[in-house]
Amino acid sequence: MLINDYYSHTIHGPYELFRLGDFKLEEGGTIRNCTLAYSTFGTLNNEKDNAVLVTTWYSGTNKIMEQVYTGRGRAIDPAHYFIVIVNQLGGGLSSSPHNTPAPFSMSRFPDLCVGDDVNAQYKLLTEQFGIERLELVVGGSLGAQQTYEWAARYPDMVKRAAPIAGTARTTTHDAVLIESMIDTIISDPSWNGGWYTNPHAVHAALRRHARYWAVMGLSPGFFNEGLWKEIGFSSLDDFIVGFLEHYFLPMDPNDLLCQLRKHLRADVSRMTGGTLHEALLRIRAKTFVMPIDTDMLFFVKDCEYEQRSIPGSELRIIRSRCGHLGLFGIEKEFTRQIDTNLRELLATPV
Amino acid sequence: MLINDYYSHTIHGPYELFRLGDFKLEEGGTIRNCTLAYSTFGTLNNEKDNAVLVTTWYSGTNKIMEQVYTGRGRAIDPAHYFIVIVNQLGGGLSSSPHNTPAPFSMSRFPDLCVGDDVNAQYKLLTEQFGIERLELVVGGSLGAQQTYEWAARYPDMVKRAAPIAGTARTTTHDAVLIESMIDTIISDPSWNGGWYTNPHAVHAALRRHARYWAVMGLSPGFFNEGLWKEIGFSSLDDFIVGFLEHYFLPMDPNDLLCQLRKHLRADVSRMTGGTLHEALLRIRAKTFVMPIDTDMLFFVKDCEYEQRSIPGSELRIIRSRCGHLGLFGIEKEFTRQIDTNLRELLATPV
Repeated sequence: MLINDYYSHTIHGPYELFRLGDFKLEEGGTIRNCTLAYSTFGTLNNEKDNAVLVTTWYSGTNKIMEQVYTGRGRAIDPAHYFIVIVNQLGGGLSSSPHNTPAPFSMSRFPDLCVGDDVNAQYKLLTEQFGIERLELVVGGSLGAQQTYEWAARYPDMVKRAAPIAGTARTTTHDAVLIESMIDTIISDPSWNGGWYTNPHAVHAALRRHARYWAVMGLSPGFFNEGLWKEIGFSSLDDFIVGFLEHYFLPMDPNDLLCQLRKHLRADVSRMTGGTLHEALLRIRAKTFVMPIDTDMLFFVKDCEYEQRSIPGSELRIIRSRCGHLGLFGIEKEFTRQIDTNLRELLATPV
Repeated sequence: MLINDYYSHTIHGPYELFRLGDFKLEEGGTIRNCTLAYSTFGTLNNEKDNAVLVTTWYSGTNKIMEQVYTGRGRAIDPAHYFIVIVNQLGGGLSSSPHNTPAPFSMSRFPDLCVGDDVNAQYKLLTEQFGIERLELVVGGSLGAQQTYEWAARYPDMVKRAAPIAGTARTTTHDAVLIESMIDTIISDPSWNGGWYTNPHAVHAALRRHARYWAVMGLSPGFFNEGLWKEIGFSSLDDFIVGFLEHYFLPMDPNDLLCQLRKHLRADVSRMTGGTLHEALLRIRAKTFVMPIDTDMLFFVKDCEYEQRSIPGSELRIIRSRCGHLGLFGIEKEFTRQIDTNLRELLATPV
């Protein structure tokens, strides 16, 4: 168990902890004294029918989801909805490699699946709050994979779903990419099989990993048109170091790897013996599939392929000049499109 | 100076050597006893007006260009043309880090530019063969960059140009990618600052580099549709190891880095003070700009942007399911499209 000030109330708070006890995982492991970190905004009404669940993406926490996707006057408005933002397992605030005591710490943290997140979140929503139906589940990237998993696993509970910039099953190309990203960390001598005593000693590996995100996570246009200038950076390298390396440096490498490997396993069709079409057919939520047009991780084509299997769903392509990391809401126009679509989705009778 | 059996007549022959003596480079260095390795096919006619110059790409040699782009009954047919295929400097067969004696060996090999290749090739064509005009210059990727450099530097000498899957100036996004690819090699402890005594000791770095090519060099569809099966591999990993790792493993890491850094500097506008439009305006060759539709290194959009500056040029998009590595001619349909376009280009009066 390591102390890492990054995963703290100071930086990501406020959040609450929900204790699940010993929590069994799909791949066979158990998280002892499993904890979910979550934040809520707004008030659950008496009918308990105004809840919106927001999931988190790779390396993200409740904080960025609160800041970029919710707020007064936004589509997901705490004045109208009871908003629950749940940190994924392995993400650093909920049970994760770095905050789990030995012997299941660090490299021995058990393997996770997206389904484990959904099972844990289900317990939180039903046991802690007595919520039986969700107005909306929404999330981006690995959070979109949780959204798909929710809608297919609990079709009666999810009224609306908005998976943004993610697929229900990790594509083979993404798997090749994720394996390569994992390798940027584990190939570094400082990684030491995951048994480092100081996560920041692995900084060169995290910087390398950040640069991989520069190549794949943004878009050619972002670089070729010099968009980093518009967001206050003085040069290309100033942006890569000042934004991407800065972002990943404080994080725990085992936590990141744990999430990347969960991402590798992400596959909504695990529940239907590998048949993707069947798994997506289970979804009854009104679903807006929202890929980003310049995304090089989750191409529109691949999202559209899945969308066609979801009954009554719609493809809503989000325009961004920032590729996958458009998710960070750097562009006002991005959040405007997100809100327009979510407003329409939330106004659709189900 | 290292012995590496990969760079040999057995594997890449037959080829000839042209000795340039001491050859001065744009970045300030000099290659002592500089040598160009080249192969020729067909016969130079008495008028010396049937020559076609074929350049080489990153990590490629004369052999693959001969096999994939020329041949009896092909557009570039030795029955009609005198075909000169020149190995680029740093490529392993021409003067390169691994075959240069100390003190300018290995990590001390001088910095190269695409313009150096064109200057050296100009000497070969004019001094060795007395060629004053070229029917066509054609090349892919870093070979396309040589093609652009040829057409802009010697506008009176190049009658036709066919840059395939490459840009005249390396884009910023490509620069970020190339820097990351370089890092996969130099971050490995076995790299040892480039002073390894056995290039194959750096194999883990070369394998990592190969996997980066898997992510960026092919296309999402190649993986997601399982195209590796069609070319005889039994699984995804069987393909990555059996094709991509196998391809790079025998090569010299310093040679690869030398080419990658040349690629970083590739910019036809060096001759016009950084003004790309002006440099491209210099071109008088009838030019077919031929990007690959699924290429993630040289996007159609970026190629088209440059094409618009070249007088009388045409954009001819090549369809491939293999992304940038479509260049290897894995698909019959790819070579068919190349030949159709080159036949039309060669038949165009200039």
